[in-house]
Amino acid sequence: MRKIITLLTDFGTADGYVGEMKGVLLSGAANVDLVDIAHDIAPQDVEGARLVVARYWRKFPAGTVHLVIVDPGVGSSRRALAVASDGLYLVGPDNGVLSPALLSEGARVAELPISTSAAPTFHGRDVFAPAAARLAAGASLDSLGVTALDPVVARTPPTQRLNDGSIAGVVIAVDRFGNLITNLGEEREGILVVGDVTIGEIVSTYSSATSGGLVAVIGSGGSIEIALRDGNAANHLGAGRGTRVRLYPPPLTQHSLLEGLSMSS
Amino acid sequence: MRKIITLLTDFGTADGYVGEMKGVLLSGAANVDLVDIAHDIAPQDVEGARLVVARYWRKFPAGTVHLVIVDPGVGSSRRALAVASDGLYLVGPDNGVLSPALLSEGARVAELPISTSAAPTFHGRDVFAPAAARLAAGASLDSLGVTALDPVVARTPPTQRLNDGSIAGVVIAVDRFGNLITNLGEEREGILVVGDVTIGEIVSTYSSATSGGLVAVIGSGGSIEIALRDGNAANHLGAGRGTRVRLYPPPLTQHSLLEGLSMSS
Amino acid sequence: MRKIITLLTDFGTADGYVGEMKGVLLSGAANVDLVDIAHDIAPQDVEGARLVVARYWRKFPAGTVHLVIVDPGVGSSRRALAVASDGLYLVGPDNGVLSPALLSEGARVAELPISTSAAPTFHGRDVFAPAAARLAAGASLDSLGVTALDPVVARTPPTQRLNDGSIAGVVIAVDRFGNLITNLGEEREGILVVGDVTIGEIVSTYSSATSGGLVAVIGSGGSIEIALRDGNAANHLGAGRGTRVRLYPPPLTQHSLLEGLSMSS
Repeated sequence: MRKIITLLTDFGTADGYVGEMKGVLLSGAANVDLVDIAHDIAPQDVEGARLVVARYWRKFPAGTVHLVIVDPGVGSSRRALAVASDGLYLVGPDNGVLSPALLSEGARVAELPISTSAAPTFHGRDVFAPAAARLAAGASLDSLGVTALDPVVARTPPTQRLNDGSIAGVVIAVDRFGNLITNLGEEREGILVVGDVTIGEIVSTYSSATSGGLVAVIGSGGSIEIALRDGNAANHLGAGRGTRVRLYPPPLTQHSLLEGLSMSS
Repeated sequence: MRKIITLLTDFGTADGYVGEMKGVLLSGAANVDLVDIAHDIAPQDVEGARLVVARYWRKFPAGTVHLVIVDPGVGSSRRALAVASDGLYLVGPDNGVLSPALLSEGARVAELPISTSAAPTFHGRDVFAPAAARLAAGASLDSLGVTALDPVVARTPPTQRLNDGSIAGVVIAVDRFGNLITNLGEEREGILVVGDVTIGEIVSTYSSATSGGLVAVIGSGGSIEIALRDGNAANHLGAGRGTRVRLYPPPLTQHSLLEGLSMSS
Repeated sequence: MRKIITLLTDFGTADGYVGEMKGVLLSGAANVDLVDIAHDIAPQDVEGARLVVARYWRKFPAGTVHLVIVDPGVGSSRRALAVASDGLYLVGPDNGVLSPALLSEGARVAELPISTSAAPTFHGRDVFAPAAARLAAGASLDSLGVTALDPVVARTPPTQRLNDGSIAGVVIAVDRFGNLITNLGEEREGILVVGDVTIGEIVSTYSSATSGGLVAVIGSGGSIEIALRDGNAANHLGAGRGTRVRLYPPPLTQHSLLEGLSMSS
């Protein structure tokens, strides 16, 4: 069985940094498949990268090594980590970007030593890629470094239940289609408001809206998203990461009462 | 022999959707090579994706599975398809994007069932990728779903021969270099006009023009293209998809008569 | 052992040209791993591509084939080359883009024949990819074409030592983070000036600067780079490729004298 190493960075590809890392990975471990996740994370956007890691890390086969390099603190005293979690490995800086795996029960963490020969501006090539290659080649987590305690863990901001029964949340990401992804999702029914624009009730799919119409849907990651049918909701609403959203309980109309009856039958 | 799955989407990579799909593919089929075609198709540009599929689908080894997800109708009643054509497989939505393979003689089509557990906004992950993995793992087309009839088939708009002997066509794509790709190509000689700008006779290569000069050439896909030497023809001409082009017969000069003689000798 | 073919182009991916090339590569050689370096080199930026090749070409395992297609002269009389250098192969146009490997001692060069059936606008697909596939499949360099003499070799512009003891250099690249990469690097101490802005002494890492501060560091490629902590130095300084830089000798302060003493002890 060939091992898999995935790569997520904010390096872009045009400067050749990712190319160098791939060479190091393939020179360090034979019989490895490299899988690009993305290299166009916004420069130094640790929070954005963390949300992307949350999406994909667990989807891969056991033994996969996820290399995650979004690292504004490179060369500072921030630690370099390798994580074993749920049968998978992750390698990256100790800045919160690996949180989704760190929060999984039983996660173990090693601190990677930083050689004096490592370029202080490119630990991706000189610290993280060699560690990822060693894990892919079968090395144990413990062989890479000593156990690290208290790694930085970031969490999606919590929602807040307000006195009027509504839930206050926030846009945590905007995707390529301009869909606004929120931190709401535990409650999946109600009337959604973005800023001061009422979107309406949560529906099941983008195509429930007519062209040019706004919809609130349960996204594929399980949270409430706002989309503009055949358009870009973020641009249309002037909304982005941090924009406030609010979920009001569904009104008890005759319609909803009937729906309740039909669902209980 | 390892199997190949190629990926063409309009998802971009930075949101992690492609990463999720890759995890599903590699978890679903061992010994598979993933090959990225592109993820930066313009959002929801089914027509653009169709032209790209036409370029590459047949170039791959027998047994390759092409996953093609440009899917504005996700979650609506549009069908999900798997296609077997010319020894290759394609998986994607029934919106015309798979037309190049559907138009090949002997193409067979199955309709993929859509599980109620599939996220209505992400069939790429929950419907198409699992089907592609099964095909790569050796499943037959018939095992994936029932035969689908009358799939949506889109075609490049036809050219039109006019009374004055000219052929009217249209720009169907603009590439990264600003080259205008037209639907003209059956006739490969004559004087090309874009909008109201006369480009001149069809030449054999970009380098036939001096720097800053416009040229009409037979492109690598077999159709007539307009390029600006050391520049961007689309920007220079203010032209884009849909711009009208016209091919006039070559003038019967002494030069062309002599050419005719030398070719017949 | 599977062979590796890497791909560096300025094609972008959205037009399908890279997809076509990948199909040709995988049809031409079984058991090959394709590794994307980048496809977003600025259109026709041979010089930028050369610097990227310099970064990665030697990092890969012996036998790797590097396909490098940034080729403004496609279809002209420029030659098509295959290079064997230091246990690695490179394939691409004879325009200087392969210089890093050509400059390595013992490099050997073959001129690839250009079939009349090759599309004059797409040698990447019809000339270079087939040659790369043959090399990956085990063909010798000599079997691909006759020895080529005097290939085009480009070099990074030299620095100049001036009468006042300073060294004059130039920005040769700007990376995705806005870091300015210079041709300075032999001298690694002193005061750096970009245009008419004094950056200060060379430090060891980006994080030596406070947020919003400019720093000059030794970059991961060994040359002096200018960075803006938590920002984009190129935008901030209005600098780009070609901007002049100057390295002045470090002042002989008490501090530096003491440093000298402690280093010699």
